[in-house]
Amino acid sequence: MIVIMNNETTDAHIDAVVQRLKGWGLGSNVSRGVERTVIGAIGDESKIDKELLQALPGVEQVIRVMKPYKIVARSYHQEDTVIDIKGIKLGGKQIQVIGGPCSVETQAQMDEAAKGVVAAGCSMMRGGAFKPRTSPYTFQGAGVEGLDMFRKAADKYKLPIVTELMDVRQIDAFLQYDVDVIQIGTRNMQNFDLLKEVGRLHKPVILKRGMAATISEWLMAAEYIAAGGNHDIIFCERGVRSFETYYRNMLDVTAIPVLKKETHLPVIIDPSHAGGKAWMVPALARAAVAAGADGLLVEMHPNPCEAWCDADQALNPQELIDLMASLRGIAQAIGREL
Amino acid sequence: MIVIMNNETTDAHIDAVVQRLKGWGLGSNVSRGVERTVIGAIGDESKIDKELLQALPGVEQVIRVMKPYKIVARSYHQEDTVIDIKGIKLGGKQIQVIGGPCSVETQAQMDEAAKGVVAAGCSMMRGGAFKPRTSPYTFQGAGVEGLDMFRKAADKYKLPIVTELMDVRQIDAFLQYDVDVIQIGTRNMQNFDLLKEVGRLHKPVILKRGMAATISEWLMAAEYIAAGGNHDIIFCERGVRSFETYYRNMLDVTAIPVLKKETHLPVIIDPSHAGGKAWMVPALARAAVAAGADGLLVEMHPNPCEAWCDADQALNPQELIDLMASLRGIAQAIGREL
Amino acid sequence: MIVIMNNETTDAHIDAVVQRLKGWGLGSNVSRGVERTVIGAIGDESKIDKELLQALPGVEQVIRVMKPYKIVARSYHQEDTVIDIKGIKLGGKQIQVIGGPCSVETQAQMDEAAKGVVAAGCSMMRGGAFKPRTSPYTFQGAGVEGLDMFRKAADKYKLPIVTELMDVRQIDAFLQYDVDVIQIGTRNMQNFDLLKEVGRLHKPVILKRGMAATISEWLMAAEYIAAGGNHDIIFCERGVRSFETYYRNMLDVTAIPVLKKETHLPVIIDPSHAGGKAWMVPALARAAVAAGADGLLVEMHPNPCEAWCDADQALNPQELIDLMASLRGIAQAIGREL
Amino acid sequence: MIVIMNNETTDAHIDAVVQRLKGWGLGSNVSRGVERTVIGAIGDESKIDKELLQALPGVEQVIRVMKPYKIVARSYHQEDTVIDIKGIKLGGKQIQVIGGPCSVETQAQMDEAAKGVVAAGCSMMRGGAFKPRTSPYTFQGAGVEGLDMFRKAADKYKLPIVTELMDVRQIDAFLQYDVDVIQIGTRNMQNFDLLKEVGRLHKPVILKRGMAATISEWLMAAEYIAAGGNHDIIFCERGVRSFETYYRNMLDVTAIPVLKKETHLPVIIDPSHAGGKAWMVPALARAAVAAGADGLLVEMHPNPCEAWCDADQALNPQELIDLMASLRGIAQAIGREL
Repeated sequence: MIVIMNNETTDAHIDAVVQRLKGWGLGSNVSRGVERTVIGAIGDESKIDKELLQALPGVEQVIRVMKPYKIVARSYHQEDTVIDIKGIKLGGKQIQVIGGPCSVETQAQMDEAAKGVVAAGCSMMRGGAFKPRTSPYTFQGAGVEGLDMFRKAADKYKLPIVTELMDVRQIDAFLQYDVDVIQIGTRNMQNFDLLKEVGRLHKPVILKRGMAATISEWLMAAEYIAAGGNHDIIFCERGVRSFETYYRNMLDVTAIPVLKKETHLPVIIDPSHAGGKAWMVPALARAAVAAGADGLLVEMHPNPCEAWCDADQALNPQELIDLMASLRGIAQAIGREL
Repeated sequence: MIVIMNNETTDAHIDAVVQRLKGWGLGSNVSRGVERTVIGAIGDESKIDKELLQALPGVEQVIRVMKPYKIVARSYHQEDTVIDIKGIKLGGKQIQVIGGPCSVETQAQMDEAAKGVVAAGCSMMRGGAFKPRTSPYTFQGAGVEGLDMFRKAADKYKLPIVTELMDVRQIDAFLQYDVDVIQIGTRNMQNFDLLKEVGRLHKPVILKRGMAATISEWLMAAEYIAAGGNHDIIFCERGVRSFETYYRNMLDVTAIPVLKKETHLPVIIDPSHAGGKAWMVPALARAAVAAGADGLLVEMHPNPCEAWCDADQALNPQELIDLMASLRGIAQAIGREL
Repeated sequence: MIVIMNNETTDAHIDAVVQRLKGWGLGSNVSRGVERTVIGAIGDESKIDKELLQALPGVEQVIRVMKPYKIVARSYHQEDTVIDIKGIKLGGKQIQVIGGPCSVETQAQMDEAAKGVVAAGCSMMRGGAFKPRTSPYTFQGAGVEGLDMFRKAADKYKLPIVTELMDVRQIDAFLQYDVDVIQIGTRNMQNFDLLKEVGRLHKPVILKRGMAATISEWLMAAEYIAAGGNHDIIFCERGVRSFETYYRNMLDVTAIPVLKKETHLPVIIDPSHAGGKAWMVPALARAAVAAGADGLLVEMHPNPCEAWCDADQALNPQELIDLMASLRGIAQAIGREL
Repeated sequence: MIVIMNNETTDAHIDAVVQRLKGWGLGSNVSRGVERTVIGAIGDESKIDKELLQALPGVEQVIRVMKPYKIVARSYHQEDTVIDIKGIKLGGKQIQVIGGPCSVETQAQMDEAAKGVVAAGCSMMRGGAFKPRTSPYTFQGAGVEGLDMFRKAADKYKLPIVTELMDVRQIDAFLQYDVDVIQIGTRNMQNFDLLKEVGRLHKPVILKRGMAATISEWLMAAEYIAAGGNHDIIFCERGVRSFETYYRNMLDVTAIPVLKKETHLPVIIDPSHAGGKAWMVPALARAAVAAGADGLLVEMHPNPCEAWCDADQALNPQELIDLMASLRGIAQAIGREL
C-alpha cells in the first residue's frame, strides 16, 4: 500500500499514518519529495483497511500495490485449473461448447433440444428452469418441474447439465436433480449470501460477470465462492452495459486475455446474451475462441420462433452444427481442439 | 406495439405477424409505406411477448408504445404517494433527511450517532447491520446483534430506522426488531426472489438503483414489489457506473425529474455513496434537493476517521448540522420544507 | 511518480528504472517490500514520460503523484478567477445565465430572442451560426451571415454574444464580428490544433466537455489553451454519454465540486443539451446552481415548435422568466446572487 | 417515421402533425389504438426533421423507420466494396495488416521499422507525423519532417503509407508527400469541417471510431465524407470508453458483424490502441480476424522500450512475425487469406 499525502501535510499527519500502519503490524518507508510526501507500507497489505487510511487528515490518495484476490489469483496457482464435469474437462486443451435453449418449456422441447446439442457435437447442455425476467408479468420459468424435464432429456444422451440458481432456497432441489454445473447469473454476481452458499457445495459454478462489474470486482466475487472451499469456478463473460444501442450488451473480448493472466480458472463466453441476436452469434463465438476462451455457452432452440424467452437470440439446430465446424478450424489454428 | 418489417418482407411474413397478434387477441393496422411496411397492434399491448414477434421472419424491429410498468406508473395514480413511516411523511411537501453511519459497529457508536442525527434535525436514522462488501475478507457487518444495537440507540430518540436486507433468510430478524424501512441495495435491485418477498411485507421499502440499471429496469424492479401487494416503495438514486475515475459513481440527477414524471412514488438520493468522498456530499445533497428529491440518505459518523467501513465518505456531526442549514434555504426557494 | 515493480523483478530491472529517472534529472527512493519493490521518483515529475517507464522490463504499474495540469490547476492560482466579459463578471459571487436559441435562423427570430433574453434578466446571449450536425443532410447553420444577424440583434441590448467555433478558418470572421466568448463544442474538445489557435487569441473561451471525456482530459484540453497564453477559460459541463436511454446525456453534477477543487477557472452548465428535453431543464438548472455552478447556458427560442434545430429542448420566453425566478432563490440560499 | 402521441392528445394535436408532414410532402396513416394514437408518415422520410415533430404538442415519441445513412449503407451498394491502395486490395478475400510505429521519430527508426513490417509480411505501413496528445507538454510529432522520413523509409519497400491528418491546413503537405491512406483519428471523428475536406480528395480514408461514438453516429460521420464524393472509406474500430479500468479501451468486437451488415465498406481493427498493452494485442488481433475484420492496424516498433510515444503497446519485430503466423491459420479457417 502506498499513501500519497497532499501538499498541506504536516509532520503530525505523517506520524498518524505511520502509527496506524504500525497498529496493523506494518512498517513504513517515508519518502519526502519536492512536492509530495509518499509513505510506503512494508508488510502484509491484506491487513490494511484502505478506507481508514484515506480518511486520515493530510492523505490525498491510497494505492494498493498487491491484488486483493488470493485463491483465484494466478499467483496462487501457476498452472491452468482444469475442472472435471462428469468426465468432461474444462480449462484444458479441449474447448467445450455448452448448447441448449434459454428456458425449459416442455419435455418434448427439451428432448428435441438435447438431440440437437448432441448432433452438433456439444459436450454439455444448458437450459433455465428459474428465469430472472425484467418484468414480473412475463414467464418466470418452469421451476422444479423444469429441472425434472431437463434432467430426463439430458440423461438420454449422458449430457451434464448447466442451469441457473437464483435463490438459496432452491439449492436442495438443485442437489436432488444433481445439477452438474450451477450458474450464477449476471444479476446475482454480487449476491454475496448466494455466493457463500455455493462456496460450500461440491459442484462447479459458472459465475457470470455482472452487467457493469469490473474485472477486479468479478474476481473478488469468485473469491467469495473460493473462500468457502469450492475452487471449481468458471468465469463467464456475457457482455457488459455500454452506450451502444444497436445490440444488447458489448462483449468484452479483452476480458479473456486479462483473466487468463490474472487467474488460473477457466473462462467461457456467452455470445448469445451478449449480442442478443442470433445473427451476431457466429462472429462473436469465433472471436471468443480465437481470443483464447476455454468454452462457450450458446443458445439453441429446436424452433426459435416458438421459444418462450429470448426467441430472437437462439440458433436453430442446423445453425449450431454449422457454427461448430468453423470453430473447429479456429481452435486448430491456435493449437487447441474442439 | 409497432412492428417494422424489413425491406425483403413478403405478404406471408406480414400475415404471420397479423396471425400471431390475433392469437393474443389483438387486431392489426397494416401500413404499406414506400420503403417499409409497418404493422400496428390494436388492443392490450401487455399480452404481447415482444421477443416472439422479433423472432418472426421479415421483422426488423418491434417497438413498445406503452410503458411496461403498471402499478408504479404515474398513469396508475396521478397524485404523489406520501408514505407514512411512524408518523414521518415521505413524498409530501416536507423533505426528509435520513442520517447515520455506514455500518453498525458498537452500542456506544450507535448511541453517539443517534444523538448527532437528532441534533442535526434529521427525521430518521440509517445504519447497516448486514453489509455487502466487495471482499470476503473485510468486515461483513455486525448481523443480528447489530440490529439490536441499532434499535436500542434509535428508540431513545424515537427515530424510525432504515437498514439493508440482503437475504430472504434475514426477514424474520428484521420483523423481530421491527425495522421501519427495509433497504434493498444496489447489488440486489434485480434479485427478484428477494423483491417478491418484500412485496409480501407491510413495510416501506427503499429500492436503490442498480449500479448500471436503466430507469426503466428500476421501475420494473419496483413493479415486482408492487405486484406482491406492497406499494410503499421509495426510489433511491445513489450514483451509477461511468467511465469517470475521479469519484466513485456518477450521481444521475436527471433521474429525479424523470422519476417524478414516470411514477407517483417518492424519490430520495444518497449523495454519500455517489461521490464516495465526504467533501463532495454537500454539493450533491444541495443539487438533489434543488432538483426535486423528496429526501436524502446521508452518512454521518461520530468519528469518521475510526469508521469500520467507508470511512472517507461520512460527514462528522457538525458537518451534518451545517449541511442541514443550507438545505433548508434551498427547500424554501422551491416551495418545500425541511 | 511511483514505479511499482512486478514480482519477478531483478536488480537489473530496478537499476534500469533508476538510470532512466537519472537521465531525466530525477533521483530515486527504492523501497523493497515483502512482495513488491516500489521506486519513488524524486524531483520534477513533469520531465518523466510515463509510457517510457511502463515499457521497461519488470515494471508493473507507474502512478503519477502530481496532477498533469499546471496553469489551470487550483494550486497555480489559489483564488477563483473572475473573467470580465464586456463588464459582466463570470466566476464571482454573481451567477450569470446565458440565454438564446440553438441556432441563428433569421434576423426576426434573433431580435425576438434577444428581447426575451433581456426580459428574463439574462446577462449574455447564445446562438449558433456554425452547427455541428450528426447528418450532412440537415441544416448546417447560417454561417457568417448568422454572425451578422446575431451581432445586430445583441447590440440593440448591449448583450455580449457567445457562439461556437468549429474550424480554424472561421477565426477571422469571429474577430471581425467581435464575438465576445468563443465556444469550443463537445466534439472538438480534443481538436488540439483548434485549441492551440484559440490559445493565441484575447477572447474568453467556453470549453465544453467531450462526450465521454474524463475530468482530467478536460483539464488537459484547457491546458492547451492556457499554454498558448489565453487564461480566460470557462468549463462547461453539458452531460456525458451513458447507458441510460431515457434522456440524451447524463448531466455530471459531481463535476462541479470536483472542478471547483481542481481549478481556479469558472464552471458553467448547459442543462438544455444535457437532458435534451425542455421539461427537464428547470430541475437540472436548479441542481447546477445549488451545486455551485458559476453560470448556465440555457436554450430559449421565441417559438420552440418552429426552431430549425433541437426544437424539443428550448424553453419559450415565459418559461425562461419563470426559471430565473426560482434560480434567484437558490442562489441566495447558498450566499450568491443572480 | 412513426409518431406516437401521448395519452392526452386531442384531434387538433393529431391534425397539426398531419399538416406538418404534408408540408414536407408526406402522407399520413392515423391509427387510433385503445390507449395511444400512432401516426405513420408515408413518403420520403429523409425530408422530415425529427426534432420539429418531437416539439409539437401531444407528441410523445418519434421513431425513425429508415436508416439515416445513405451512400455508406449496404442497401445503397449490395456487394462489399474493395478499395485499391496502390495495388493492395482492402475489403476482399485477402486480409491486410498495416504495421508500424505509433510515431515517426528518426530516419533510422523508420528504416528499421519498414524492414520489420516487410519481414512480417504486412502489406502497408503506419506511423504518425502529427500526434494528438492529451498533454500540450509532451512530444507532438515530427510534423512535415516526419512525413518526409516516413515516405523515404516506405519507398524502399514500396509500402503504401497510412498517417493521421489532424488539421485542414496540413492537407497540402499530405498531398505533396503523396500519403496513400489518410487516417482521421478518434478525437476528430465528428470534426465535420475536416470530414468535408477529405470528402473532396481522391485518397482512401481510414475513419476511426470516436471514443464513445455509437455505430450510427460513426456511419453518419462517414456519410459526411461520402457526400463530398469520396467513397473510399475504411472504418477502424479502436476500442471505446467504458467503466473498466484494467485496460485502456474496450474493443467492441460486435461492431464488426454489425458494420458488415449495415455498410458495404471495409472494416479494420486497431488492437494496439484498444488494449493499450503489447501483451493484449495478439488475442485481440486474433479475435478481430475471426469475427470478420478486413484488416488490422498494428503498432510495431524496432525497439519498443525506446519509443517516444505509447511505448508499452508496441510489439517488437519478432512478436509481429509470430502474430502474423497465427492470424494466417485463423484466416484460412474462415475461408480468407492473409
